[in-house]
Amino acid sequence: MRAVVMVAPGDVRVDETERPRIVEPTDAILKITAACICGSDLWPYRGADAVDHRPMGHEYVGVVAEIGSAVTTLAVGDFVVGTFISSDNTCEICQAGYQTHCVHRGPGADPGAQADYARIPNADGTLVATPGVPDPELIPSLLAASDVLGTGWFAAVAAEAGPGRTVAVVGDGAVGLMGVLAAKQLGAERIIAMSRHADRQALARSFGATDIVEERGDAGVERIKELTGGLGAHSTIEAVGTQESMMQAIHATRAGGHVGYVGVSHDVALPGRELFYSGVHLHGGPAPVRRFLPELIRLIWDREIDPGKVFDLTLPIEDAAEGYRAMDERRATKVLLTL
Amino acid sequence: MRAVVMVAPGDVRVDETERPRIVEPTDAILKITAACICGSDLWPYRGADAVDHRPMGHEYVGVVAEIGSAVTTLAVGDFVVGTFISSDNTCEICQAGYQTHCVHRGPGADPGAQADYARIPNADGTLVATPGVPDPELIPSLLAASDVLGTGWFAAVAAEAGPGRTVAVVGDGAVGLMGVLAAKQLGAERIIAMSRHADRQALARSFGATDIVEERGDAGVERIKELTGGLGAHSTIEAVGTQESMMQAIHATRAGGHVGYVGVSHDVALPGRELFYSGVHLHGGPAPVRRFLPELIRLIWDREIDPGKVFDLTLPIEDAAEGYRAMDERRATKVLLTL
Repeated sequence: MRAVVMVAPGDVRVDETERPRIVEPTDAILKITAACICGSDLWPYRGADAVDHRPMGHEYVGVVAEIGSAVTTLAVGDFVVGTFISSDNTCEICQAGYQTHCVHRGPGADPGAQADYARIPNADGTLVATPGVPDPELIPSLLAASDVLGTGWFAAVAAEAGPGRTVAVVGDGAVGLMGVLAAKQLGAERIIAMSRHADRQALARSFGATDIVEERGDAGVERIKELTGGLGAHSTIEAVGTQESMMQAIHATRAGGHVGYVGVSHDVALPGRELFYSGVHLHGGPAPVRRFLPELIRLIWDREIDPGKVFDLTLPIEDAAEGYRAMDERRATKVLLTL
Repeated sequence: MRAVVMVAPGDVRVDETERPRIVEPTDAILKITAACICGSDLWPYRGADAVDHRPMGHEYVGVVAEIGSAVTTLAVGDFVVGTFISSDNTCEICQAGYQTHCVHRGPGADPGAQADYARIPNADGTLVATPGVPDPELIPSLLAASDVLGTGWFAAVAAEAGPGRTVAVVGDGAVGLMGVLAAKQLGAERIIAMSRHADRQALARSFGATDIVEERGDAGVERIKELTGGLGAHSTIEAVGTQESMMQAIHATRAGGHVGYVGVSHDVALPGRELFYSGVHLHGGPAPVRRFLPELIRLIWDREIDPGKVFDLTLPIEDAAEGYRAMDERRATKVLLTL
């Protein structure tokens, strides 16, 4: 079968590899329908994280091709949405809604989801079936639910976006944009997207942003303060993962407000004293997308949200390398690979 | 009048100074009844914070001696409990319960509360009158409400201590002990006090601790995990303010759990990646004691809680220097100064 591999930074190839098999009785094998290239894949692509022949892809939708003997909630032929971490969904941590920290957590797709087939451990706990075979037009949105929507949604929930709240969003990548959509859906009164790219600003507005701030860093914080009577946002979504973006999020938030951070942290050290005197709530980390999947699938199925708009480049898997290049060069916000 | 001054690290004196006067029409002048020495005063005492002839004291109870022309909720003769930050209690931040970040915040007692008299800015917003003149036996508990109880209470609320929760408490100083009391009062199922001092362990148990962990750092975290089925506490109160205590608190908490931190942060830098993958909620800072004062006064007045037990040394103000020494040498947990 075909599978995308990052051989080294900047070097992405499509290899022929063996189709994965059931290993544990709780496994399922999926025929992948579509997979994404993730913003977080740019860290190794750019050499910021080590990488050596890594099988790629952790966002996927597909059809169940085979199930292990202990799988009870799925049948061959089901269309499913998966997540980037496998979880049993029954342990105390999962039941509290933190499936990414499941006591039996593991990779979501083995070896990777940018492939014809993938093995999904703990299939009952990890995969959620759609109500039926989706219309092709729904595939991008369902695929978005697998990671970027689920992650943006978690960030908005962690930031306690809701009615009467002003929400600032740091980061205009796919996750930030999905954070805008989530904040809107959760009832936020005002949503300030921080972006200096016209195309992403337009997308942010289409997802519900009411204001755009182009400034960054201290100047960006200053603008947020100006827009909020000097107090700062009630809720801030952080979707970048750098020192600058984290401090921008913390400083843009009023005391007692909430920062939901989901940008994978790179070289960040939060100064204790500054955090202490900020008085903000801080919550985030790898998003427990599984918690939100049933609700997100329902919203997509009922055409209440259209997160699939975030994909601005669709390529067949053979052209995966071009997809990585396009994201790296910011010619694309989010790339969908078809199989 | 008499007033305690920290001339330099380790050098505390009782000076004769001028009695403060009303400056703003929203001020009140208090005749201080009792004041505390604060654990946070040990930072400058030990030379960790700069200090030069600083008037001391920010925890106090007293009797209103004089009010400005704009003060409406207090009368001369009222017995009141104050807090270490003055606040208007009407701005949007105060109304959200974050009076320590009030847009009109300032020092709680000017110049300091370890003195015969102190000026309290924004008296209506800062001071809360007791239902009447308290029995002398209630004075220590009301004084505790002014800071250590209010701070421990905030930490427990920030850590979301409550029914069904296991709460770990890092720090066995007065604030940590008050955190134990608060967690108990908020209905926590299990309260693990981390302490290696027999006297403080006994006090912690008397306030509601169900378990004691003597180990610190990684070993302490390991013990907390052992006591919680490998998962960590639901809620952790951090009441020290060092790198070790912050990391101990974060590591001792399960993913999705809550760390409430109130130890004044000293040389702390939180590693972003570790925080990201911990999945905990982090909230804290200078405690908005004012939010909790009405409820705390009621609990004390009705003899439902007895936080005054935390004072293990009572001295007349003339002996303030001995009070600082006793706390520095850990001969006393918390010192009450009478005036």
